[in-house]
Amino acid sequence: MSLIVQKYGGSSVANTERIKHVAKLIVKARDEYDNVVVVVSAMGKTTDNLVKMAAEITDSPSNREMDMLLSTGERISIALLAMAIHSLGYDAISFTGSQVEIITDTSHTKARILKIGAKRVREELKRGKIVVIAGFQGISTNNDVTTLGRGASDTSAIAIAAALGADECEVYTDVEGVFTSDPRVIPQAKKIKSITYEEMLEMASLGAKVMAPRSMQIAQRFKVPLHIRSSFINKPGTLVIAKEREKMEEALVRSVILNEDEAKISIIGIPDKSGIAGTIFSRIADENINVDVIIQNISAKGMADISFTVAKEDLKRTLDVADKLKSIVEPKKIECDENIAKISIVGIGMRTNAGVAAKMFQSLGENKINIRTISTSEIKISCLVDKKEGKKAAQVLHKAFELDKL
Amino acid sequence: MSLIVQKYGGSSVANTERIKHVAKLIVKARDEYDNVVVVVSAMGKTTDNLVKMAAEITDSPSNREMDMLLSTGERISIALLAMAIHSLGYDAISFTGSQVEIITDTSHTKARILKIGAKRVREELKRGKIVVIAGFQGISTNNDVTTLGRGASDTSAIAIAAALGADECEVYTDVEGVFTSDPRVIPQAKKIKSITYEEMLEMASLGAKVMAPRSMQIAQRFKVPLHIRSSFINKPGTLVIAKEREKMEEALVRSVILNEDEAKISIIGIPDKSGIAGTIFSRIADENINVDVIIQNISAKGMADISFTVAKEDLKRTLDVADKLKSIVEPKKIECDENIAKISIVGIGMRTNAGVAAKMFQSLGENKINIRTISTSEIKISCLVDKKEGKKAAQVLHKAFELDKL
Repeated sequence: MSLIVQKYGGSSVANTERIKHVAKLIVKARDEYDNVVVVVSAMGKTTDNLVKMAAEITDSPSNREMDMLLSTGERISIALLAMAIHSLGYDAISFTGSQVEIITDTSHTKARILKIGAKRVREELKRGKIVVIAGFQGISTNNDVTTLGRGASDTSAIAIAAALGADECEVYTDVEGVFTSDPRVIPQAKKIKSITYEEMLEMASLGAKVMAPRSMQIAQRFKVPLHIRSSFINKPGTLVIAKEREKMEEALVRSVILNEDEAKISIIGIPDKSGIAGTIFSRIADENINVDVIIQNISAKGMADISFTVAKEDLKRTLDVADKLKSIVEPKKIECDENIAKISIVGIGMRTNAGVAAKMFQSLGENKINIRTISTSEIKISCLVDKKEGKKAAQVLHKAFELDKL
Repeated sequence: MSLIVQKYGGSSVANTERIKHVAKLIVKARDEYDNVVVVVSAMGKTTDNLVKMAAEITDSPSNREMDMLLSTGERISIALLAMAIHSLGYDAISFTGSQVEIITDTSHTKARILKIGAKRVREELKRGKIVVIAGFQGISTNNDVTTLGRGASDTSAIAIAAALGADECEVYTDVEGVFTSDPRVIPQAKKIKSITYEEMLEMASLGAKVMAPRSMQIAQRFKVPLHIRSSFINKPGTLVIAKEREKMEEALVRSVILNEDEAKISIIGIPDKSGIAGTIFSRIADENINVDVIIQNISAKGMADISFTVAKEDLKRTLDVADKLKSIVEPKKIECDENIAKISIVGIGMRTNAGVAAKMFQSLGENKINIRTISTSEIKISCLVDKKEGKKAAQVLHKAFELDKL
């Protein structure tokens, strides 16, 4: 029995006309596969409107109530989409996160999936129905509605595909697939035909907006074959798989990612004793704040400086944590810099090819782009540069690694 | 331990400003009562907007999916209202119909409550929290979201008040209470200070828009003291109780109700054999259509005519049923008349006072208002008249029974 999971994002179901269009794509899939499961986001700006209403009520809404509020958006989409499928003469049934038994922890607004029951999904698939599931939401171990964080409908879809053992998970979005860089920054950017989970995971973590990092982790762990494509244009998009079939060796650098949405925090002049970094980052993690690039320098006087970046939207909360840590870590000062851009290159080929970093730094240097901070992993290199030089840096690197010649 | 249940309708929570105002009324009640439970409708036009979106998708949406769709409106209200209460420094928690275990049958869009668990409600009240519950919705025995019919948030509130043994159920609305007639039709209409369940039930069934008949049945059955009042003006409204304390004998007619939202269907010339009426009305009931006035005449030739009224919104579906019945009951013809108004008088005093009906018919006759059909019960009399004479009939009767002199 073949099974496909399709996920449609907010722009794909932005209005009732779009929902009717998506219903057609779904019944087409139903003609090709024995079983079709669809995961849907909230319609277009619904979530933003709900957030706006909450802001009119209070500056600091309770996370539990935010989840109660925001989870309604996807419920509207699934009901309307099921109706649209019915009106094409196919049988469909909508389910909330609770009905699919997407059991999560109790971290409201950023809940983690613990397990997926999906008993009713299997039953309705056996009856030949197309199953339409609300993305982004689950039900906590306390029986409260939870949400999985902004953009987490991808996570829902991939986790459901993994739980059901789907043959493929198609992720429909408003772009044609994964590109060598953001086409708005680099008009020469090319669509990538296929890419590995590992590369996508790095790209997602670096701020490429196509897929959320968490969703890629689940895809990688359960080896869910992904197809990222557009619901607006009927063209193949980008396949995300465990191992590429061909030409893998040639792909040295796959993608250049510019991220202007981070800020850098420096905690300067802290006593260089063991455990300090652990204390700092565990407190930050307690607040559910994701830290990106971390650099620690030890100065001559036995003092350490720790710098790290966070998403700008988490900056205020991070500074609050840092402030509370003052009495424990006793730094000389805490600095914050929002005037940065992070430019990164990603490629699985880096592992076996020396000289990639050198080429990156050299290209930036030749173009008089000053590198402030460097951070590397096995398959990526990131540099922090001045914000105003971010776009130029992206263009320089896209050209240097010949990504426009794909 | 004192316990009050408050219910706020859609106009009372129409926007975030109104929600903040309602939060103030709620915390004021919390200062007066040990326990406060609040039942809320969807914000203003939310439900209408959702219905409109469904209509853009399909002419005949599935009832199950309509319930999934419409139940989101109240979830938005409860989350925002809980936030607004928090911001006043009081503890509150929102619950869906499912979380309150409002277990219903599986009649989607018109579900009946089977039982109410309310375990979590009791727990959170013990913790001192204000509990905010989504009206209008429940969870079916199949674990699907159900709704209880338009305007059924009253039903939710009264059923919850009954289940919790509340001291009182306050129903906040956009009118000041129950009036002797609709003040838009009869400017002299007076607010009624207190009234019995029985009278309210008749008035509700006759189309007085204040309370839904079902909610009054539950109130009467479980003797839930009601206080119907305005959330816009701080004034006592109308008490609804089992038995009035004083002056009951004097209240001959309590209220005049004009209903212009019904249509009359006549099934003419059917063989006069037993069981025919049963067949007709059981088929109509199967479609969850409420039938109001029913009249049957036997003509000389052994043929019967059956006339009845239904809400105009149910007319199309009722005619469909009648059409299907043609082969069974073989009528000469089926007629339909939308050009009617139903004028009714209600009063518990009618039971022991003769001459009320005579006075009604006489007053209408003196004013040259032609009565087409008469239907009576123990405490009410209804007449069908030409639609264009409905308002005049209401005014004539309001004056004849001296309701403007209260």
